[in-house]
Amino acid sequence: MSLLAVGTVAFDDIETPAGRAEKVIGGAATYIMLAASYFLKDLQLVSVVGDDFPRETLDFMQSRGIDLSGLQIRQGEKSFYWAGRYHKNMNDRDTLDTQLNVLATFDPVLPEHYKNAEYVMLGNLTPAVQLRVLEQLQQRPKLIALDTMNFWMNVALDSLLEVLQRIDILTINDEEARQLSGELSLVKAAKKIHAMGPKYLVIKKGEHGALLFEGDNVFFAPALPLAEVIDPTGAGDTFAGGFMGYLASTGDVSFENMKRAVIYGSAMASFCVEKFSIERLKDLQTEEITNRVAQFARLVTFSA
Amino acid sequence: MSLLAVGTVAFDDIETPAGRAEKVIGGAATYIMLAASYFLKDLQLVSVVGDDFPRETLDFMQSRGIDLSGLQIRQGEKSFYWAGRYHKNMNDRDTLDTQLNVLATFDPVLPEHYKNAEYVMLGNLTPAVQLRVLEQLQQRPKLIALDTMNFWMNVALDSLLEVLQRIDILTINDEEARQLSGELSLVKAAKKIHAMGPKYLVIKKGEHGALLFEGDNVFFAPALPLAEVIDPTGAGDTFAGGFMGYLASTGDVSFENMKRAVIYGSAMASFCVEKFSIERLKDLQTEEITNRVAQFARLVTFSA
Repeated sequence: MSLLAVGTVAFDDIETPAGRAEKVIGGAATYIMLAASYFLKDLQLVSVVGDDFPRETLDFMQSRGIDLSGLQIRQGEKSFYWAGRYHKNMNDRDTLDTQLNVLATFDPVLPEHYKNAEYVMLGNLTPAVQLRVLEQLQQRPKLIALDTMNFWMNVALDSLLEVLQRIDILTINDEEARQLSGELSLVKAAKKIHAMGPKYLVIKKGEHGALLFEGDNVFFAPALPLAEVIDPTGAGDTFAGGFMGYLASTGDVSFENMKRAVIYGSAMASFCVEKFSIERLKDLQTEEITNRVAQFARLVTFSA
Repeated sequence: MSLLAVGTVAFDDIETPAGRAEKVIGGAATYIMLAASYFLKDLQLVSVVGDDFPRETLDFMQSRGIDLSGLQIRQGEKSFYWAGRYHKNMNDRDTLDTQLNVLATFDPVLPEHYKNAEYVMLGNLTPAVQLRVLEQLQQRPKLIALDTMNFWMNVALDSLLEVLQRIDILTINDEEARQLSGELSLVKAAKKIHAMGPKYLVIKKGEHGALLFEGDNVFFAPALPLAEVIDPTGAGDTFAGGFMGYLASTGDVSFENMKRAVIYGSAMASFCVEKFSIERLKDLQTEEITNRVAQFARLVTFSA
């Protein structure tokens, strides 16, 4: 199976209570693809960088099986840059700086061999860009997931609602689910969001875990209680990458398998936060992932 | 097995986004004992009310098997009164009024037949009053649980630390665990709190569930995603009552059984919030409780 992902590939400046990291590798698509690379090899990246983006990072991504033919490298331009500072609780953060750079005029162009992708992950971007990706596909993928954020609900709600009608799974956080639906109860929010298009809804609650809704079915995946969180940046995208990577690798989109996918996504996210940037996602061993999934199972298992 | 509980029996004025309720029945010990009454019948209440407290509520408590011989009824005095308003998120609340009344001079006196209680729940009260209860016991109970709050950490830390050395299980919320330990990570907080005395720690996270720690063992119980939350008042105490009631009814204090007790406590709390005051805890059917526990199991169960 193939997984196509569109999203940012970028530089981050990050300050957390555990320290700081300057001009490190970031971007939603970077995290999505790296997390997915532990589950399957047919990975199609759609993104844009400037010529300031390090060649060795691109080489590393290719070594993980990520196809970069959909990555535009703009000569004489700069990559997208984000700077943020996390609060003491590691759940909230302030954006200190955002420089769109190459992203300001990004028009995704899909190489021919991407156009039959079976699994598609639309990372957080302008809904218009997410739509542009869907328009270029030659056949309806087996599964389309979309990530978005409150910013697009504020400034581009109409095109967001348009793209929502064309996708299968929406992944957002609890505050965003409440804003999008106008409902405080996540159960009611899920019903309203289902009516907007997505059959499945994943609500990411950070250190409080994640909820998966499909009609009246609901599944809850905890977050692993960790002694040390170094950097939460990319955890949501890593979750999405692990989730979609696992689904694509199994080719099974039943609710039972989605539950497993949520656990695999959560496991990948739990690694992500253990180091700054993408460091922890560089050379995970299969056994580490399997053990962590087993830890999630132990965390919630009780005999009735 | 017998369960002794000390705590408030009181009046509440409650305002939530779902409505308001005036001068309704409240109090930590009320919720603890009612929740426990679904699991065992030897229930020993230690508390104090004024002569304004309704006789029919006391009759109802007795009909649920709650022994009131440790309840002081002060003639010519008023019962403890609390008024609060919940925020839109139902997790935060403001206290609008607190009238200690009979509680200001409360000195718990244990009837002779309470003094060999096997399970003891020290509801949220001045640590000095919690200690006074322990001092009157004739033998070390099988299990002592204690609930407290940030207020006592601020104004009575020394006596709180003293009582912590004498108990087995501490139940507090996540912010309180962080304040008591000075650690942001709940894993680190648990280690520090273990060192203060309690072998077990239950961290209540409201709509985000609850964590049980024992040494390196950790168990997570989700909260049930509910379409409608009417009134969160008493949910934590109802949890504690269900938890201790289940433990006392089984007489098994292994970690495996504590996990089940956390689920039973969570199930009872999920009923509590469905109506104002103690309404939902008045006539639950065994089958409803069993079904709700099964719902908790389904919520987190996945096949690896």
